[in-house]
Amino acid sequence: MAEAEVKLLGTWSSPFVLRIKWALKLKGVEYDFIEEDLQNKSPLLLKYNPVHKKVPVLVHDGKSIAESYVILEYIDETWKENPILPEDPYQRAMARFWSKFGDEKFLPSMWKFFISQGEKREEALVSASENLKILEGELKGKKFFNGETLGFADISLGWIVDTVSLLEEIMELKMIDEQRYPSLSAWMKNFSDFPGIKDSFPPQERMLTKYRTLREAYFATTRGTN
Amino acid sequence: MAEAEVKLLGTWSSPFVLRIKWALKLKGVEYDFIEEDLQNKSPLLLKYNPVHKKVPVLVHDGKSIAESYVILEYIDETWKENPILPEDPYQRAMARFWSKFGDEKFLPSMWKFFISQGEKREEALVSASENLKILEGELKGKKFFNGETLGFADISLGWIVDTVSLLEEIMELKMIDEQRYPSLSAWMKNFSDFPGIKDSFPPQERMLTKYRTLREAYFATTRGTN
Repeated sequence: MAEAEVKLLGTWSSPFVLRIKWALKLKGVEYDFIEEDLQNKSPLLLKYNPVHKKVPVLVHDGKSIAESYVILEYIDETWKENPILPEDPYQRAMARFWSKFGDEKFLPSMWKFFISQGEKREEALVSASENLKILEGELKGKKFFNGETLGFADISLGWIVDTVSLLEEIMELKMIDEQRYPSLSAWMKNFSDFPGIKDSFPPQERMLTKYRTLREAYFATTRGTN
Repeated sequence: MAEAEVKLLGTWSSPFVLRIKWALKLKGVEYDFIEEDLQNKSPLLLKYNPVHKKVPVLVHDGKSIAESYVILEYIDETWKENPILPEDPYQRAMARFWSKFGDEKFLPSMWKFFISQGEKREEALVSASENLKILEGELKGKKFFNGETLGFADISLGWIVDTVSLLEEIMELKMIDEQRYPSLSAWMKNFSDFPGIKDSFPPQERMLTKYRTLREAYFATTRGTN
């Protein structure tokens, strides 16, 4: 039987795509990466993700799966070696819970801080800091979210490592320092030191240009009212 | 060994809580239901869901799990009888995909329609109708989302059955009719006819009062600008 064909539709800069790359790498799954231009979506993307028209999309044996957490679960269930979810149902629930927290609470709060000005920016900082404290509390005394083994929640929240340093550089301030967030800082180091992770982040300079442009465009559109 | 203790913290009217009740019922799991007042959150809720302070929360053997989809996965992994997710990884991915679609795309579009006026209302109707068409397409020729067996996606989207009829009554219009949405209409019937489902919806009159009040409060706050 021929090797199952795996394709990943993504963009070079998306943190949601990056987590799929990490999972496939951990599993040792070979795949073709297809770079999408979201300003000019390909017929392939529209065919494989007609509902959301977004990346990432995983195509396996001609069947497509969208939504990054749905894809992560699929990968873990399809390629059993190096499981990214623990066995115990409660531990699995915690991995899913923290992943959702990252996308639904922490990420929006960081983004709001990044694109806000004046009073709104101060409010956004309070909210982002509260979420950082929650993560700090959760990671206390642990190497990874589930203990000693890198897994689902680490992959899901791994975007913090490079995104926060980008935001920090652009905003010229330190968000996550070792004094206030020792456990979170240690986790960031543990994660990026993990074999195969450090070299997988998108090029820093290109990301800086992208995020600077995004931020300026946002300020220009909202005229600083948000 | 004593029976494992299961508690569900919820509110009588929440569709997110209702899906947990349905899953526990399908599994035949006995539990204590603890009604929460979200205007005056109990110490128990704050203890068991300190991050989001929301319902539903499932407490099993003293350990708490929040977020309705995380809870559904936990229930399916903990009580194996009557699985709500299929075995096949791709089918599981589809069940998760449609559940997410319901909460992240369809529900917000319906809600926006419900609380909008004037031009915004027309825009919201277009968006809600597009989502209804997507669901209609997905359900074509199928009894339930996964085929013949009621499962994860049906439980996740089951709120449509009573919520849409409430919105229809309050707005005095028909959103889901058999002519335009025959498959979706048939699914709604199949779902509510399923043993144990029909009698589980919250009391219609009480829900009507709640939703009418919510809508009027919203209009009063936004003065019809949204």
